Amino acid sequence: MRIIVQKFGGTSVANRERMLAALEKVKTGLSGGYKVMVVLSARSGDTDKLLALAREWSPDPDPAEQDVLVSTGEQVSVALFSILLRDAGLKCRSCTGGQLKVVTDEVWTMARIRSIDAEAIRALFQEYDVLVATGFQGTTPDGRITTLGRGGSDTSAVALAAALKAELCEIYTDVEGVFTTDPNICGKARKLNRVTYDEMLEMASMGAKVLEIRSVGFAKKYNVPVLVRSTFSDDPGTLVTEEDQGMENKLVSGIAYDKDQARITLRSVKDVPGIAAAIFGPLAKANLSVDMIVQNPSRGGVTDMNFTVSRKDLKRAQAIMEDVCAHTGGLAVLYDDNVAKISAIGVGMRNHAGVAAKTFACLQAENINIIMISTSEIKISCIIEEKYTELAVRALHQAFGLDAPAQD
Amino acid sequence: MRIIVQKFGGTSVANRERMLAALEKVKTGLSGGYKVMVVLSARSGDTDKLLALAREWSPDPDPAEQDVLVSTGEQVSVALFSILLRDAGLKCRSCTGGQLKVVTDEVWTMARIRSIDAEAIRALFQEYDVLVATGFQGTTPDGRITTLGRGGSDTSAVALAAALKAELCEIYTDVEGVFTTDPNICGKARKLNRVTYDEMLEMASMGAKVLEIRSVGFAKKYNVPVLVRSTFSDDPGTLVTEEDQGMENKLVSGIAYDKDQARITLRSVKDVPGIAAAIFGPLAKANLSVDMIVQNPSRGGVTDMNFTVSRKDLKRAQAIMEDVCAHTGGLAVLYDDNVAKISAIGVGMRNHAGVAAKTFACLQAENINIIMISTSEIKISCIIEEKYTELAVRALHQAFGLDAPAQD
Repeated sequence: MRIIVQKFGGTSVANRERMLAALEKVKTGLSGGYKVMVVLSARSGDTDKLLALAREWSPDPDPAEQDVLVSTGEQVSVALFSILLRDAGLKCRSCTGGQLKVVTDEVWTMARIRSIDAEAIRALFQEYDVLVATGFQGTTPDGRITTLGRGGSDTSAVALAAALKAELCEIYTDVEGVFTTDPNICGKARKLNRVTYDEMLEMASMGAKVLEIRSVGFAKKYNVPVLVRSTFSDDPGTLVTEEDQGMENKLVSGIAYDKDQARITLRSVKDVPGIAAAIFGPLAKANLSVDMIVQNPSRGGVTDMNFTVSRKDLKRAQAIMEDVCAHTGGLAVLYDDNVAKISAIGVGMRNHAGVAAKTFACLQAENINIIMISTSEIKISCIIEEKYTELAVRALHQAFGLDAPAQD
Repeated sequence: MRIIVQKFGGTSVANRERMLAALEKVKTGLSGGYKVMVVLSARSGDTDKLLALAREWSPDPDPAEQDVLVSTGEQVSVALFSILLRDAGLKCRSCTGGQLKVVTDEVWTMARIRSIDAEAIRALFQEYDVLVATGFQGTTPDGRITTLGRGGSDTSAVALAAALKAELCEIYTDVEGVFTTDPNICGKARKLNRVTYDEMLEMASMGAKVLEIRSVGFAKKYNVPVLVRSTFSDDPGTLVTEEDQGMENKLVSGIAYDKDQARITLRSVKDVPGIAAAIFGPLAKANLSVDMIVQNPSRGGVTDMNFTVSRKDLKRAQAIMEDVCAHTGGLAVLYDDNVAKISAIGVGMRNHAGVAAKTFACLQAENINIIMISTSEIKISCIIEEKYTELAVRALHQAFGLDAPAQD
């Protein structure tokens, strides 16, 4: 039994007409000799409406019951899509997360998938050619409804592909694939034909939100080839896959940016063992996630500690830091929410020196001041003033030769 | 473990404020020392919206998938209500039909309950004080979602009460109970404190739609005491129960009417064996349900056959009858959709002669012509011209002493 997974996002199931376009993709899958496991998101806007409804009911809705509420969004999608598929004469049925036994932990609103009963699903494929599954949701071992958190439908799709040993996991969306950068701010952005899991992980976490980050990790772990493509065109899309030879030529695959950044600086904190824990422990306890951290070398036993958080968390982080500062003898807490993060990403940079230097030189040539720097094996990120974001993206895009037409 | 069932209809869960009123009823139940099994309908309008959505997607939506779609309405209700209950500190959780193992047959859109796993529910009550169940829906033995058809939440409630051996099944709605007739057309209508299952059955089928008819049959079969009452007042409501001594005094308990009637007459059909089958067979085959049937005594080997159908079915019934008429040698098909059915109902009439005579005399005194008559043990129904409906209701209400204040 040859199986492919086809996941359609919220914009691809937003209305009947778009669902009909998605239906054509399913037919293409069937004509390729595959059984098709469809995974759907809620229609665009539905999840937000349901979350807003929960908050109308309570300032702090019970998370388990919020999951029961929100999971209806995907159920509506799978029912409507199955109605179209049945009308088209396809042998199909809809399946909820509970029906497919997508078992998760009990971390309501952001559950993680623990197991999928692949045998039961294969048995259903004896009877049906297409199964239309709700993305984003699962069930606890004792049968309560959970949701996987924002973008969880991608994770559902990849997890099902892994469990079913599907040949391919197609992620259908409203863009034609993964781009070298945001086409909205750089007209010369171009679609990548291939990208590695690692590059995609960096891109997803940077705000190039084509694929939910957890799903990419999952795909990498189980080596599921993921094809990101558009429901509304015949473009072959972008294949997210393992690194291969052909990819080595490129130094940098893409430029990402993230404006949801706010910087906090603790001035002149004592540079003693345990100071980092004293600062970041309370933030973790308050469930605030910290992105970049930069500690300047110590001078005279004191140092500055710089880090960034999501802007929505700035107020809470600040209050915690005032407190920490008082207890650690720091001089002051400074904050700045007029910053953005800009990153160059590429598996190629592993084997090439000079990417960092080229990045800094490029930004300097545009008179863009670099506030913080952070690097990983395949990524260089800089915090800059927000107003320079678009300029920096375009400059780096050109500097790394991404403006040229695709060659791979 | 003492259990009561509390069912709240669509108007009782229509918004947050109303749900808060329902919450008070749950608290009252708990303070009585009961575990409370709550059963909810979809918020008023939600089911219609979902059905309309299905019909936007297909002129003839796959019924199994339509059930998947429509069942989200109750799921939204139970989640929102549980959010309020949790905020109020109650030990509660929501449950879908599938989670409670309310097993039905596979007649999508109008499934019938086959079994309920009462032991599993009692086990949940060890952990929770309140379970908030979706009405109207169940699951096939292999786990697919079904719905019970319009008004099915009443049936869910009574079935759960029967399975759990609940002491009482409270049906909360937006009226204070069962009335002697429609208060909208007879200002002197009064609430009944008690009514028998049989009377309720006749009333429900007549258009006094306080309780869904199937649920009353269920309640009668399993002897579940049902209390119909308002979510928005402290009125004790109407108890639907077995016949008892106190009820014998009343000849007639209520006057019902139904304007959804259209009359069809086949003139001068041959009065031979099999003629009724020849007429009603094709109607049954076309899934048209016939209400009243009156056959005049034969004269010269021919007879007139009169019957009524729902107005929405008139056109289809007419076409079938033209055909039947041609094949059976009938003279003509006449039809009339300006008629209404009016009924006097009461277990008391079983032991009293003269109720029929009194009914006819009353209508005659108002110059209302009786077109058809049909009787059962506890009911007399007349087809009259529609325009006289309100007049007839008021006249019969007075004639049978229902205008007087309640005495039971």
